[in-house]
Amino acid sequence: MSDTLQPTREGDLTFAYGAAFRLEAGGSLQPVSVRYAVYGELNERRDNAVLICHALSGSARAADWWPEMFSNTPSHAKEARNGDPGGSVFDLSRDCVICTNILGSCYGSSGPISINPATDKPFGPDFPLVTIRDIVRAQAHVLDELCVKRLRIVIGASIGGMQALQWAVDYPERVEHCIAIGAAPLSAMGLALNHLQRKAIELDPNFKSGRYAAGEQPTGGLGLARGIAMCSYKSAALFDERYARKPNRTGEDPLRSVADRYDVAGYLDHQGEKFVKRFDANSYLVISKAMDTFELGRGYASEAEALKRIKAHVSLVGISSDWLFPAKDIRALVERLEVAGVQCDYTEFETSHGHDGFLAEMDAIAAVVNGSFHARRLAVVHKNVARKLGG
Amino acid sequence: MSDTLQPTREGDLTFAYGAAFRLEAGGSLQPVSVRYAVYGELNERRDNAVLICHALSGSARAADWWPEMFSNTPSHAKEARNGDPGGSVFDLSRDCVICTNILGSCYGSSGPISINPATDKPFGPDFPLVTIRDIVRAQAHVLDELCVKRLRIVIGASIGGMQALQWAVDYPERVEHCIAIGAAPLSAMGLALNHLQRKAIELDPNFKSGRYAAGEQPTGGLGLARGIAMCSYKSAALFDERYARKPNRTGEDPLRSVADRYDVAGYLDHQGEKFVKRFDANSYLVISKAMDTFELGRGYASEAEALKRIKAHVSLVGISSDWLFPAKDIRALVERLEVAGVQCDYTEFETSHGHDGFLAEMDAIAAVVNGSFHARRLAVVHKNVARKLGG
Repeated sequence: MSDTLQPTREGDLTFAYGAAFRLEAGGSLQPVSVRYAVYGELNERRDNAVLICHALSGSARAADWWPEMFSNTPSHAKEARNGDPGGSVFDLSRDCVICTNILGSCYGSSGPISINPATDKPFGPDFPLVTIRDIVRAQAHVLDELCVKRLRIVIGASIGGMQALQWAVDYPERVEHCIAIGAAPLSAMGLALNHLQRKAIELDPNFKSGRYAAGEQPTGGLGLARGIAMCSYKSAALFDERYARKPNRTGEDPLRSVADRYDVAGYLDHQGEKFVKRFDANSYLVISKAMDTFELGRGYASEAEALKRIKAHVSLVGISSDWLFPAKDIRALVERLEVAGVQCDYTEFETSHGHDGFLAEMDAIAAVVNGSFHARRLAVVHKNVARKLGG
Repeated sequence: MSDTLQPTREGDLTFAYGAAFRLEAGGSLQPVSVRYAVYGELNERRDNAVLICHALSGSARAADWWPEMFSNTPSHAKEARNGDPGGSVFDLSRDCVICTNILGSCYGSSGPISINPATDKPFGPDFPLVTIRDIVRAQAHVLDELCVKRLRIVIGASIGGMQALQWAVDYPERVEHCIAIGAAPLSAMGLALNHLQRKAIELDPNFKSGRYAAGEQPTGGLGLARGIAMCSYKSAALFDERYARKPNRTGEDPLRSVADRYDVAGYLDHQGEKFVKRFDANSYLVISKAMDTFELGRGYASEAEALKRIKAHVSLVGISSDWLFPAKDIRALVERLEVAGVQCDYTEFETSHGHDGFLAEMDAIAAVVNGSFHARRLAVVHKNVARKLGG
């Protein structure tokens, strides 16, 4: 028996047959497919829906990559039987959790590996640029299909958090509570790191300007991109704690040759090798660019005007050791939200796990989800530092 | 007239003709050449020598890459005439400043572009691994040649600081004052970033396992390596201040295509393009590996035993925003030095310039050089935070 919670149902919504789905950056898609997964059941009033938004390399199957968010996973149930229920986040006897694969991805929604109707071949590098706004608008089509008018919670971390914020701005009537973890417009350093990752992919001779055949993708470049990203997802403290200056565990001697590695290098290479088996390089380019171009003010008079549209309560979560989305950038966004009159709270996780801390600090996330209005108190209970700005 | 201070003399010392120069990692070189530059004159007692140790991509011509260290540069003289002499560091009417190009480099000393006597062709990837200890031992040959028994100061930043520390350990009788800026054994994150840079070079199809022809080196990979390095030499705060989320100044629109860049990306690419014109990829691999393997304890019973050998006064300098050599790692080294009974002081520069701050904070460096025993007071005068640990 699998230890993974299976969706109650999943499907692909395909729309924009008759008229093109116009993209914010100027291109269009016709039609558009969005893969979605539903965990639990919508109640009669359809007011128990939660939307989980995934990060760069996630999929619609939220329980596969964020199992801790579900109280009902087999492993969670086992812990509960042992008297340690852990942090309870979403309970499928109450909540209906929906997750959609984002545009540009390679996990079922329209993206570079999808067939381009104009050529009957995969789009590859001809897939148009998408933005977080486009991704959210496609998600709204899925919610319409499911007859969900309003979300109790929209939650995500990293690019998922960008989507949650974009939801609150673009569909103010449809969001009750927006929770964005480790997400803000990328700083210059974040833009720099994404750029270097894309360059790594493009440097690989197997990239062939994006026109590589299926099964012949630029694994060296994509693996290197993943390695650069991992450095920004983790923290120096965590690396020191786990790897220090130890030689690679496979028995290499860093003094023997340029190629002999330290343990942290072996770890990064291993992460790269795992990643290239499950992710497409062209998708990586498109989604990392969507991450770059996230700006809540675009399409509105200003960011301030965009934020004023928000009617949801907004919970922002910063991660103390996050290098990709520094906590200070999240706090700055909280300040701008407060200036715009948005009801919001801020929790800061003290962790050495870096940006990936959102996967490692589930108790604290449970506290934010279950009691965001008391986030400060609960977060302290959970031994995390919580700060409420401006109040 | 050039604005660059010219060396009083420069030369190449070639030695190890008869017997091989054995390297710490096991290989050997026969013969060895070291390019050196001398600024000013040795006095009769030969006790006015200062050794500047260069970082990864420097050369023996210290005044070319660290002009601010010389009170006598034309630009400095101009400032002095204008009544602003700036921070006075080395004065060639008093000091004799020596700098040698490190082994493995491409600026005149034995390295991958040197001719391998066994094949009459450049070493390329067959150049053996060198360590900081080897580099320092080759420098000692040059000082012997110049009849310099003892250094008033050995100073360096980054890999240069590693050399300064290795000098103090390996030649305790020959060093009066050791000044190491932004240098300590690399942390796991530093090892990770160096590994990724080397992978970028090796990924480039022009790398050809290091057997590229002169003028056909892997510019894409070496440029990408430089870009990754620049992210670790600068700081997120500096990037935000300089580039923020501005589109590239050449008029690109990041929303137009994956290739259209933000300004910070244009900056990194420009740095890469400049770098590949002046540096060799195989040299980069060898020197970045020497940086990785720097450990003062190797060859001694332990690091503690190695540190106990030191007779010099040691001044360590940390840089508050340094991501490659975090100030906390420098402070930890100060603590270990103090446990070993070494006379030392510690100054911390508060700067947003990151690791490269050593090039931007010359007044404070002057304070350390001129008054290391009063470093704390002087550094505060210079509006920098100075901390003396354990005292």
